[in-house]
Amino acid sequence: MSRFFSPKYSSLTPYTPGEQPQERKYLKLNTNESPFPPSPLAQRLARDAAGDCQLYSDPECRALVNTAAESFGVEKENLLFTNGSDEILNFAFMAFCDSEHPAVFPNITYGFYPVFAELNKIPYEEIPLKDDFSIDINDYIGINKTIFIANPNAPTGIALSKADIEKIVASNPDNVVVVDEAYVDFGAESSVSLTKKYDNVLVCQTFSKSRSLAGARLGFGIGSKELINDLNTIKYSTNPYNINRMTMAAGIGALCDKEYFEKNCLKIAENREQTRRELQKLGFWVTDSKTNFIFAKSDKIGGKELYLSLKEKGVLIRHFETPLLKDYNRITVGSKEQMEEFIKTVREILEEKQ
Amino acid sequence: MSRFFSPKYSSLTPYTPGEQPQERKYLKLNTNESPFPPSPLAQRLARDAAGDCQLYSDPECRALVNTAAESFGVEKENLLFTNGSDEILNFAFMAFCDSEHPAVFPNITYGFYPVFAELNKIPYEEIPLKDDFSIDINDYIGINKTIFIANPNAPTGIALSKADIEKIVASNPDNVVVVDEAYVDFGAESSVSLTKKYDNVLVCQTFSKSRSLAGARLGFGIGSKELINDLNTIKYSTNPYNINRMTMAAGIGALCDKEYFEKNCLKIAENREQTRRELQKLGFWVTDSKTNFIFAKSDKIGGKELYLSLKEKGVLIRHFETPLLKDYNRITVGSKEQMEEFIKTVREILEEKQ
Repeated sequence: MSRFFSPKYSSLTPYTPGEQPQERKYLKLNTNESPFPPSPLAQRLARDAAGDCQLYSDPECRALVNTAAESFGVEKENLLFTNGSDEILNFAFMAFCDSEHPAVFPNITYGFYPVFAELNKIPYEEIPLKDDFSIDINDYIGINKTIFIANPNAPTGIALSKADIEKIVASNPDNVVVVDEAYVDFGAESSVSLTKKYDNVLVCQTFSKSRSLAGARLGFGIGSKELINDLNTIKYSTNPYNINRMTMAAGIGALCDKEYFEKNCLKIAENREQTRRELQKLGFWVTDSKTNFIFAKSDKIGGKELYLSLKEKGVLIRHFETPLLKDYNRITVGSKEQMEEFIKTVREILEEKQ
Repeated sequence: MSRFFSPKYSSLTPYTPGEQPQERKYLKLNTNESPFPPSPLAQRLARDAAGDCQLYSDPECRALVNTAAESFGVEKENLLFTNGSDEILNFAFMAFCDSEHPAVFPNITYGFYPVFAELNKIPYEEIPLKDDFSIDINDYIGINKTIFIANPNAPTGIALSKADIEKIVASNPDNVVVVDEAYVDFGAESSVSLTKKYDNVLVCQTFSKSRSLAGARLGFGIGSKELINDLNTIKYSTNPYNINRMTMAAGIGALCDKEYFEKNCLKIAENREQTRRELQKLGFWVTDSKTNFIFAKSDKIGGKELYLSLKEKGVLIRHFETPLLKDYNRITVGSKEQMEEFIKTVREILEEKQ
């Protein structure tokens, strides 16, 4: 820390992104990326946009917003695009939380929520999950606080139904409920339609997982015109040109190539179920994940030991050091071949241990 | 505003970006973009990166940082890249200003500074320019506040020497001086070398102007390892993957293609001087701009009238409504042909008025 750093941020503990090792080629199952390249249309449109980059991108993202409005069946005024979904989540913490409206989220969830709360000096409460890692929705009924729910949740992969989300939204009419649907496309139920019925729900999604664009950085929120308007006030006071031309073009391509998107989501869901069954055969306990990752533990090997043994053999998965999660690992679901190699390597490690 | 918007931001007046009209094709001289496309190498590398966008970008931007370190003659630890230079300016307001360290900047300068201060609840003071629109450096000597100086300044185009910047930096050893060099490459003196001598200076630059990448969104800061470390704490608590793969690749290409960069900067400076002379012949008063824009007024026509008349004839320039600037206009320097057309149209308008 420099002697100039404002004390207001001196105790911040930043978010730790997953490893991006450069020294060796790994089978990379640690950051929930798609094993499939971006849609050919997304790639082509992004490439075409590269030649026009001397001109600013459209701060209103009109072409992208028009495409997305049609794709999600909402109005243009209900949409805001951001530089990854982390940016809209941060905007939501800024806009809808303060000492009168503290933030609430599960104690096991996306690790960035407490960081956003700390960054913005927002009091927050972490509600424990049940022992089976599921969310007890009763903990969120009528609590009069700003609620952040990842649905499906991370790193557990467990999803709530839209009906359950609706109960939470309806019972907190004076607070915003942010539903972070980063992983929704792999088998969970989206709450986008609730944004038409309730003015207090903001649904956030990302192009990083199901649309193979993690490296292009594109996220968005869907909510009432008024909520989006507030978030735009933050955006235009922070970084109006937050989406570059190439990413905007890639986003349009990814939305238009619906067939590619749906086919990939289906494949990932199939590979997930197949890998779950294989892990169960090897004695692992796995959650009922509706995402592109698996959350698993074994009595035969500790979480950290499995992570390190796999890394030594060239397979990267995500391990968390926090006490509640240290026995588990989060494994991204890749292609069929990648998952076969993963299972083969896990089997080897278990055999070597015997 | 929604009923959920936190009162802490309810009085925010966001920044207003320059017009990006879609309804008609204009000769666009209003947002200080380059008339030249991105370097062919930047385009090629960006296109190549589009196919890998299923993978997250490197949050440390290692390949780009390595290239930039060599290009600017600094160490890797002295560099931080952001999603446009607006992002690093906002980070600097966050990291280095608070009630003990209020922000100070000229009353006429980049219009985003007061917005960043308001957003972050930072007290700030605006110091009037001299009557000729130049900065009196005595106003900034030993003031013990966090100083933001656009050098050259906007929208005046007037530059301070590195020696003058050094006097400000040296006389405020306990506060950070942020030198915003968005336009430095068109003829002003950079203060990057001061970052080796002083631990309290942060130099910010952008790829939007001289490197023809406004639409790719890339900015950066150069400062002591400790300052950069503080800014990284903010970045990793806000948006760790803030630079996408295509932009990172384009940035590397733009830095490597030094010849293209230098040739374009030279052309812009030539076109600026030529246009200045033409405007002076038409009776305009123009500042001694060292940027890619011209700041001008005429006794024969009001600032707004000229702006509107030009717009009607298909030429967009930037007009500011603020009292101190309303007689002036800011005209981006484009290609030789564009500037000839601009001068021709101004001449027509003046003739029609007679």
